Amino acid sequence: MNKFIDFYFDFISPYSYLAHKRIREIQKEKKIEFVYKPILLGGLHNLAGITAPALIKSKKKFLVDDCEMVARKFKINFKFNEKFPINSLSLMRGILVIDDNAKDLFIDKFFDAYWSLNSDLDNKENIIKILKEINIDPKIFYENISKQETKDNLKNITQKAFDKKIFGAPTFIVNDKIFWGQDRLDYALDEFKN
Amino acid sequence: MNKFIDFYFDFISPYSYLAHKRIREIQKEKKIEFVYKPILLGGLHNLAGITAPALIKSKKKFLVDDCEMVARKFKINFKFNEKFPINSLSLMRGILVIDDNAKDLFIDKFFDAYWSLNSDLDNKENIIKILKEINIDPKIFYENISKQETKDNLKNITQKAFDKKIFGAPTFIVNDKIFWGQDRLDYALDEFKN
Repeated sequence: MNKFIDFYFDFISPYSYLAHKRIREIQKEKKIEFVYKPILLGGLHNLAGITAPALIKSKKKFLVDDCEMVARKFKINFKFNEKFPINSLSLMRGILVIDDNAKDLFIDKFFDAYWSLNSDLDNKENIIKILKEINIDPKIFYENISKQETKDNLKNITQKAFDKKIFGAPTFIVNDKIFWGQDRLDYALDEFKN
Repeated sequence: MNKFIDFYFDFISPYSYLAHKRIREIQKEKKIEFVYKPILLGGLHNLAGITAPALIKSKKKFLVDDCEMVARKFKINFKFNEKFPINSLSLMRGILVIDDNAKDLFIDKFFDAYWSLNSDLDNKENIIKILKEINIDPKIFYENISKQETKDNLKNITQKAFDKKIFGAPTFIVNDKIFWGQDRLDYALDEFKN
């Protein structure tokens, strides 16, 4: 495979989840490699001077209906989490401290937990339970995400994304072109048709 | 025809233009009726507490590229207007004062002028030139759009849209469901498949 798409995401973003589920389907064909790039969406929005749609009352109701509609179209299990929004900082930092070969499963598990199984991921006990299920030692996990190095790492990654003109999630990058929103996944894939 | 889609738009919105051009293609099949609903997008954004993407620096560059990409996909003539944004108030009020049978042509002409022909529609002379081309008397036009009644009318229409939970343009309404963004035109059409 020499076709790459960078996929910038945050667990807190429902459209990132929907894009992720579509990506997992596309990956089965093994034609295109997706490089998952965790960012802190709240931090990116701050840098970009953007108010998240979920925080705008008039958009929030639409957001819920719209996500459900997109999920139905692509036959994705989806339930808008009752505890939304939460702080996704621990989980986003988590991706940076676990073993590379654990990352896919970690991402699958926590995306599904939050956007399909309605888990309360504000509750540390629920996170610990999932970590144990996927054989990650919670004690080491929490030690590692508390390190200043990890905090700086996520901050730097988010800053770098902003420097690349990324301002939201999900964002796909192909051939240095920015595709923002799960609606643009098809456009990103079209890049390989030329 | 008994299939209706309400289409809320403002000339200032490039995605409204792109949706409009796609609608004109769909209308050729004469299966679905589109009811054009002019609103003042700036006023709607104020009501909804939304900052227009075009006013957010980090989104503006993307916006231009993205519109061009969508235009290419649907083979729509498009050029991001060099004088963007302008105040679309006169033109949006204009739709409310011209004869019903002149509306389609008026909408086509001014959408094309701004988003395909790069016309400077901040310049009244350019507006007058187009009005004459489509046999609308500029004197009567400007008299009518200056009436308090017309101003109130556009304001009320925009307020009513907001009351219906509409917060942006383009917006499609089918069966009381809200579809926001030109990306949702296909979803709106899907409503008739059930």
